[in-house]
Amino acid sequence: MRLARAGEPGAERPVAQDESGAWRDLTEVVGDLDPSALAPEALKRVATAVAGGDLPVVAEAARFGPPLARIGKIVCVGLNYRDHARETGAEVPAEPVLFMKAPDTVVGPDDEVLVPRGSDRTDWEVELAVVIGSTAAYLETHEDAAAAIAGYAISHDVSERTFQLDRGGQWDKGKNCATFNPFGPWLVTADEVGDPQRLGLRLWVNGELKQDGTTADMVFGVHEIVRYVSQFMTLHPGDVINTGTPAGVALGVPGTPYLVAGDVVELEIDGLGRQRQQFGSA
Amino acid sequence: MRLARAGEPGAERPVAQDESGAWRDLTEVVGDLDPSALAPEALKRVATAVAGGDLPVVAEAARFGPPLARIGKIVCVGLNYRDHARETGAEVPAEPVLFMKAPDTVVGPDDEVLVPRGSDRTDWEVELAVVIGSTAAYLETHEDAAAAIAGYAISHDVSERTFQLDRGGQWDKGKNCATFNPFGPWLVTADEVGDPQRLGLRLWVNGELKQDGTTADMVFGVHEIVRYVSQFMTLHPGDVINTGTPAGVALGVPGTPYLVAGDVVELEIDGLGRQRQQFGSA
Repeated sequence: MRLARAGEPGAERPVAQDESGAWRDLTEVVGDLDPSALAPEALKRVATAVAGGDLPVVAEAARFGPPLARIGKIVCVGLNYRDHARETGAEVPAEPVLFMKAPDTVVGPDDEVLVPRGSDRTDWEVELAVVIGSTAAYLETHEDAAAAIAGYAISHDVSERTFQLDRGGQWDKGKNCATFNPFGPWLVTADEVGDPQRLGLRLWVNGELKQDGTTADMVFGVHEIVRYVSQFMTLHPGDVINTGTPAGVALGVPGTPYLVAGDVVELEIDGLGRQRQQFGSA
Repeated sequence: MRLARAGEPGAERPVAQDESGAWRDLTEVVGDLDPSALAPEALKRVATAVAGGDLPVVAEAARFGPPLARIGKIVCVGLNYRDHARETGAEVPAEPVLFMKAPDTVVGPDDEVLVPRGSDRTDWEVELAVVIGSTAAYLETHEDAAAAIAGYAISHDVSERTFQLDRGGQWDKGKNCATFNPFGPWLVTADEVGDPQRLGLRLWVNGELKQDGTTADMVFGVHEIVRYVSQFMTLHPGDVINTGTPAGVALGVPGTPYLVAGDVVELEIDGLGRQRQQFGSA
């Protein structure tokens, strides 16, 4: 099932796509797509309502917002594709590298992204985002991890490399600028995605293909990441994990221009839709 | 003004202390102490209502919860006291080191804190927390920074050193275990605190004084931290900044035992009250 939030910023309505491809308004079923809507029973209720065919059809949305409201935390995995670790000159990590983005960095998939003031290396990263559906702590198996996942979406983990790497040593400083996490357009439920390790990810800058990877090349797979993270922090419904980016970022390819106002970045992941951001100036 | 949230977990009521020291119920004035209650106008409304003397008196609370609900993000400053940087063998940083804690790590000031499974180095850190009252981006002056601060509280920035330092290179992994940010008991408004650079901070483990510092020894003062952070991320009402810890943590003093279940940690900061946590096992 494809879930989304359609409408103007701050006034999005929850919607789901029916078999015919039409978007149905879920407001009366879940109020909003927030953490409480991700529980397995809530998702079943949504599926039943959509299949029933009685929910109002929404006219083609002018805008999709982030497909999840009230995100709790965003945990990010660094250097999680072998080719990306290599291109940045880093070792392939022995265990997942974790850092964090604040939920207030999240914008819709096609919203403007702002190059921060003082930036000289604003970079792109297409990533598979995992959306947590049930509380997870100290998970033991990959099966338990799979059961805690509500679905998947595209995250654009926008990064300012100078802030991240040269301004004090912890990466969070270059990952949390306003608008730095376009998210969506859809939250696709785990049952529809199937195996998360066989998805192609692509990213273009001004029409030129820059990243062209597959989740098959992850160092740590999605289920291992969820199991691993749950050893260090409790994952709650509505938490998001950005699972890392494949090769092809500006940082990794000498001579590649970084992003400036006016640039257009497009991203897609198989089955999860497509994003398009025009960059502006903060 | 001292603001707090009194009651059982998840059922706290907002309260403020009147001139006689009695706690007055603010429910009808602000609903809850959440980001919207921190706006200068809202704080003025609260002060007027408390001075009016008509708000119901609350019986001495059995428990204080965190004095702020719906915290947006928690930005932490590392190595921000000269003596602490020295004791951990680090250079005094040239600019603030930033990392993050998720708001779901926050518990009340006297709630149980859990030593995580697999931990061998759970450590303490008494810290002055800054609570943001109005949106702040690209602030230019320390005056602007001061105007963005609603008040102050005690944060206990509990840390697992092995997770933080030896498990992949970014500190967040050792800072985000469940219950790792006791917060409160009070949120004291900035006007009452006055100069934030002359507050004593102390921490005891099982009755033995371990940290005994003053905010005068910060490398970067509170107003500079707020100004600095606002260059990299937008600060919103309800965001919290943990401003670093003075010397005396277990990491810094060779041979000091780390925390285990059964230990009791007490913390205080001049004018901001006192915390007491019994440690347990996750």
